[in-house]
Amino acid sequence: MLYPTPIAKLIESYSKLPGIGVKTATRLAFYTIGMEDEVVNEFAKNLLAAKRELSYCSICGNLTDQDPCAICQDETRDQSIILIVEDSRDVSAMENIQEYHGLYHVLHGLISPMNGIGPDDINLKTLLTRLMENEVEEVIVATNATADGEATSMYISRVLKPAGIKVTRLARGLAVGADIEYADEVTLLRAIENRTEL
Amino acid sequence: MLYPTPIAKLIESYSKLPGIGVKTATRLAFYTIGMEDEVVNEFAKNLLAAKRELSYCSICGNLTDQDPCAICQDETRDQSIILIVEDSRDVSAMENIQEYHGLYHVLHGLISPMNGIGPDDINLKTLLTRLMENEVEEVIVATNATADGEATSMYISRVLKPAGIKVTRLARGLAVGADIEYADEVTLLRAIENRTEL
Repeated sequence: MLYPTPIAKLIESYSKLPGIGVKTATRLAFYTIGMEDEVVNEFAKNLLAAKRELSYCSICGNLTDQDPCAICQDETRDQSIILIVEDSRDVSAMENIQEYHGLYHVLHGLISPMNGIGPDDINLKTLLTRLMENEVEEVIVATNATADGEATSMYISRVLKPAGIKVTRLARGLAVGADIEYADEVTLLRAIENRTEL
Repeated sequence: MLYPTPIAKLIESYSKLPGIGVKTATRLAFYTIGMEDEVVNEFAKNLLAAKRELSYCSICGNLTDQDPCAICQDETRDQSIILIVEDSRDVSAMENIQEYHGLYHVLHGLISPMNGIGPDDINLKTLLTRLMENEVEEVIVATNATADGEATSMYISRVLKPAGIKVTRLARGLAVGADIEYADEVTLLRAIENRTEL
């Protein structure tokens, strides 16, 4: 005998979360038992609601509780520019800076030749449909600065450029606050290549 | 706009757990949305069940899904010895080594003069009742080796010794695998005082 069944089951559920091992799960489970009834009820309700009420926007693929999502429905946003990101968290990061006022397109993944993930495995087809049906002047590829992110941005650029759409990507260079001394070589190279006039 | 309401609420629930900040809560919430329906349903069910089905044993104070708890009901266990611990996790740690076959008593706290927690604020009264109503030969005080743990064990020893009950506590000394070089002074002192014959 180790723990009574209800707590053993709760520990098991907690340990299915990423980065949470059995020790942390046990701590969380015991903490949960000491929490107020309402708080735990609310937690359980929120878990079920998140699964039930959230879906992906049929236009841009962003996580949303209404379809189309609030951004796609907002007619004040610039409809001529689409920013392409890997997942919904990137949309939130962008919205957070309150400087971008165009639309989004969420890929739900990146092209990854090493892992056998090709263009058909991510949310690209709907992007092509959107570009054909709407007047889009510019597509900003905002994928991570990793190998897969680069592969994806190269692919998108090759497909869209012949169609006469301007394709740009986020600037590469030193992060604000970064030390030149500790910057990696590729970052430094990009920072020199893309230097700007003062 | 940052996140759709259902996910914002789930992030809020996750961040109420100990050691989980907003960034981790966000990661967990997005991970939850990607989990299978059954797993999330099970998680919500386990949360509610743990709160609803668990209570404290009316005899020993251990966390249990039946009253009295499985240990108190087990007549094969040695009824003449009671091991006193701070909380239910300590009971599990003890049970894990499968060497102790007596009963337990869970204090749900420790006497802490610094924090104004006295003997009446922890689960001590029921212990005295148990000792009066049953034939108990030995009480082992297994509180942590901290100031509060020591204060609690001193108090219990002073109350029970005049009643003719043998009161012992866990051995103090070097932890298995410990370096003498890095051991603190009090631990070394206890290790010399309590040296055993080879």
